[in-house]
Amino acid sequence: MLTYDPPVDDIVFLMKAFGYDRVSDLEAFENYDLETARMFLEEGGEFFSEEVLPTNREGDKEGIEWDPETKAVTTPDSFKDIWGQIAANGYLGLNTPTEYGGMEAPYTIGTMFSEFGTAANKSLSMCGGLSSGLTIALLENASEEQKETVIPKLANGEWGATMALTEPHCGTDLGMIRTKAEPVDDEDNAYRLSGNKIWITFGEHDLTDNIVHFVLAKLPDAPEGTDGISAFLVPKYLPDGTRNDVHCAGIDHKMGIHASPTCEMKYDGAKGWMVGEPHEGMKSMFVMMNEARLKVGVEGPALSEIAYQTALNWAKDRKQGKALDPDKRDPDAKADNILVHPDVRRMLADVKASTEGMRSLVAWTSIQMDLAHEHPDEEKRQEAEDLVSLLTPIIKAYCTKQGFENVSEALQVTGGSGYTKDLPIEQYLRDMRIAMIYEGTNHIQALDLVGRKLTKDDGRLYRTFQSRITELISECDGVEEMEEFIEPLKDASQELTDLTMKLGAKAADDREQAGAAASNYLHHFALTAIAYTWARQVKYAIDHDSDQLETKRKTARYFYEMILPERKALAKQVEAGKEPMMDFERSEF
Amino acid sequence: MLTYDPPVDDIVFLMKAFGYDRVSDLEAFENYDLETARMFLEEGGEFFSEEVLPTNREGDKEGIEWDPETKAVTTPDSFKDIWGQIAANGYLGLNTPTEYGGMEAPYTIGTMFSEFGTAANKSLSMCGGLSSGLTIALLENASEEQKETVIPKLANGEWGATMALTEPHCGTDLGMIRTKAEPVDDEDNAYRLSGNKIWITFGEHDLTDNIVHFVLAKLPDAPEGTDGISAFLVPKYLPDGTRNDVHCAGIDHKMGIHASPTCEMKYDGAKGWMVGEPHEGMKSMFVMMNEARLKVGVEGPALSEIAYQTALNWAKDRKQGKALDPDKRDPDAKADNILVHPDVRRMLADVKASTEGMRSLVAWTSIQMDLAHEHPDEEKRQEAEDLVSLLTPIIKAYCTKQGFENVSEALQVTGGSGYTKDLPIEQYLRDMRIAMIYEGTNHIQALDLVGRKLTKDDGRLYRTFQSRITELISECDGVEEMEEFIEPLKDASQELTDLTMKLGAKAADDREQAGAAASNYLHHFALTAIAYTWARQVKYAIDHDSDQLETKRKTARYFYEMILPERKALAKQVEAGKEPMMDFERSEF
Repeated sequence: MLTYDPPVDDIVFLMKAFGYDRVSDLEAFENYDLETARMFLEEGGEFFSEEVLPTNREGDKEGIEWDPETKAVTTPDSFKDIWGQIAANGYLGLNTPTEYGGMEAPYTIGTMFSEFGTAANKSLSMCGGLSSGLTIALLENASEEQKETVIPKLANGEWGATMALTEPHCGTDLGMIRTKAEPVDDEDNAYRLSGNKIWITFGEHDLTDNIVHFVLAKLPDAPEGTDGISAFLVPKYLPDGTRNDVHCAGIDHKMGIHASPTCEMKYDGAKGWMVGEPHEGMKSMFVMMNEARLKVGVEGPALSEIAYQTALNWAKDRKQGKALDPDKRDPDAKADNILVHPDVRRMLADVKASTEGMRSLVAWTSIQMDLAHEHPDEEKRQEAEDLVSLLTPIIKAYCTKQGFENVSEALQVTGGSGYTKDLPIEQYLRDMRIAMIYEGTNHIQALDLVGRKLTKDDGRLYRTFQSRITELISECDGVEEMEEFIEPLKDASQELTDLTMKLGAKAADDREQAGAAASNYLHHFALTAIAYTWARQVKYAIDHDSDQLETKRKTARYFYEMILPERKALAKQVEAGKEPMMDFERSEF
Repeated sequence: MLTYDPPVDDIVFLMKAFGYDRVSDLEAFENYDLETARMFLEEGGEFFSEEVLPTNREGDKEGIEWDPETKAVTTPDSFKDIWGQIAANGYLGLNTPTEYGGMEAPYTIGTMFSEFGTAANKSLSMCGGLSSGLTIALLENASEEQKETVIPKLANGEWGATMALTEPHCGTDLGMIRTKAEPVDDEDNAYRLSGNKIWITFGEHDLTDNIVHFVLAKLPDAPEGTDGISAFLVPKYLPDGTRNDVHCAGIDHKMGIHASPTCEMKYDGAKGWMVGEPHEGMKSMFVMMNEARLKVGVEGPALSEIAYQTALNWAKDRKQGKALDPDKRDPDAKADNILVHPDVRRMLADVKASTEGMRSLVAWTSIQMDLAHEHPDEEKRQEAEDLVSLLTPIIKAYCTKQGFENVSEALQVTGGSGYTKDLPIEQYLRDMRIAMIYEGTNHIQALDLVGRKLTKDDGRLYRTFQSRITELISECDGVEEMEEFIEPLKDASQELTDLTMKLGAKAADDREQAGAAASNYLHHFALTAIAYTWARQVKYAIDHDSDQLETKRKTARYFYEMILPERKALAKQVEAGKEPMMDFERSEF
């Protein structure tokens, strides 16, 4: 029943198709050529499918225990051992520089690899995700002493990390936080933090010796709003070994991710140290959030893939109904295998085409992340950075929404069995749903796209994106095999540009217009971007005579004929403007 | 946190708009004028929201217990008392003829009323739903003795009912069932049944003194396939009080509807009596199924409504972020209420417009059900029957799919809170998901629509449907206020007719074409049908100077501008044909 064959071949294909050679050619990554990457992915994939996957349902069933006396949080039995193995394999420090005890692999490998951990045990993978997120934030903003103290401990799994942003009265709107940080009189650089945080993932647990909280708080003289937020490192145990005044005051009972503790944290004068400059905490937090947003986006293809494989495996055995085409009927059987039925194939192909499409968008973006950090040419770095900035909110929002729909569709393939705990799909569906909410709700991503990314530097980010489509179109000029994709790609991309310009014009005078259209606009953008990545996959397969060509072409066709047409509805919805929703009086809802 | 204001006003508005007067004018329903109906709905709504709703979350938490020793099934503590109250109020026999102890109300009232029970406690409502479903099947097919023995006991709640169709190897494909029924030698009309059934809702429980199973089985001489299926009544306790050999061999552990026992049933020579003629069991079962399919469709608006109200209630309190329009900002507050944000309104309006739209489709169809049964004019009966036949699979499939999406969207409004058990929405989402599967999966509904209903009597059912649209269009001729709806309604309906003809032509030679397009075609049909019911609502409100006119018009506009455009994508998907999914080799999935 537990089925998971890590999609290493597809990932390697995508890394090739989107130019991983430009990453492995960089000096920083000379030890990570494609063959090394493949071996690493294969070995890791095997570990996650064989060792980690069996702990997933146990985690769902056992859940988390919180002791009101000691405030301790207990994770499922098998987690401690498996956490140790994950750490021992070096997976927590995959992208961490070697000088801080990591493997210094490209982000591309880290991001693509994160699919396995999420598919195998989403709850547990969230703990590791926080370690790598905090590492990135510290690398960019912390003092050398902070880096040396914290990062190696995160990389070897001795310490865990948290992101402590949300408070009971504010999540989306962080400007309103009330947690206070006051300088400690007789000690340099130390602060005492007081306040309450909620929704703190792995805020307390028994997997690591220590936990270092990355906390947003306000200094006594802080200005109003987000410009007055500072960031602090607050360890559970202080350097001298004493317990700090940060405790878990309770845990949430959730629809899914039962084995991921969601904690209410109380800081009662807990000691902490500032990261970066006063009032500039959001800068560090955004580094962590952007990395986290991309990884949360990966939850979409991750759970889509494992749900797809589970459903496919089930479908291959199930016989029900006669084939509609008499030639496909088994004359000796009372019923044919359900894979003969067009609608079963439709559901599976929906999930397959969308999953590989999302994965390709992630692959393309991850490669840009490495280029943005390491490319020697500043212009190339900027272009890559533009794409990462633009595509991150799209990946986070689209992949989590589509991932939820995909898992639900995979469940539908298995009928009543999928609704029971006999199959793991219902857990995947419950686990998936949160991803549309956390790390900034999907609408917050849409506002980020429309309000910040599109408007930045006179629309340069969008132009960079469009130039990639134009390049591909001209590369395909005269390639007959590509026509079936290039023509609709031109249409979709022209439509997106039209919508972008119309929306920009409307929103300039009226920000409500941007808010009303943002979510549907983002969805249209995602479909167009994935149409581009599908065309690139096929083009690559043609050019390199890939043995995946035929299947990739059919899957791309499915995307173009059955999924991309959703844009027709989205374009209408964007064009409808704000009136359909804003015309209601409050009392009319 | 538990919010539910039964939508009596909207139901009464819809009953008026879709011509309930034609039902209450019928001789059979002279005691059920609109005012009586309203009073009944108000009283019942109050009962369900105040008495039944509080048992819902207890049911989710406690679930069902099965004792492997005694094979007994225990329902949550509070259910027994509330079941007694439901029965005492007469709700179980709402549509049952008075001669069998019922209230003999029109189906319209029964169907619209069922929304309250489902919203308040979906698990428990399933038990009552089986009673009314079996009653209908028996009224049409059972002997007078069977009717007199069973129906009054179902109406007064002393007995429960089941539908026992599915077996481990077949659900969708009932022709393969293996349960055997052999005549008892020394007794007239009695049979002994042997076999296993699965997914039997309320197959065993402690709410009633007896349970009467409606079981599909095959006689020794039965032909192959569905033409060899007979139907039997198999009571848990025999008329002489002895225990019959039917037992619950286990229960399923499910994603939701935790308080609805889903039983595996074993018949070890259990005594039963045939209903109707040998080998004609599917006839009786289809009566029960069609009634059940309409009621399952109602689960969509039911859970959408309660989730909507829960989200709206939450949104009215929540402050987060500043209004995008500076004029709407509260200058004294750090954040504005989230109802100022366009995307929050978009999500709420989505759910509202879709919920009222689905409810209106149910209201229209329910009224046709009464006319089909009771109208003195045969032609009118036939027309009404045509609409019921055509719209039942659409209501079942569309409303359950859309209902699931609506509950998920309502959850999104409440953010992280909705993902926890602090709010009841996550339960509604889990409870809703099964409706896309049971009573015939949604694709089975689509095949019923495309394969049976469209082709029946040379397409007369579709023509009857289209004639209603044409009538409305001509009624609106020259009514300026209606133009904004009539023009797009014309387009949608013309597009649906085109799709219907194209699909018919393609599917005539190739049934796989029908299978491939059916689900998306059904969805398009549903949107067009609801566009029609929305236009009728507005027209009614204009003609009767209704005080709901302004809100109904805005909600209809939202449907036309933001939901109906989905048809653009669906039309493309239908036109894409079978190739996108059938071209894959089996090994390519």
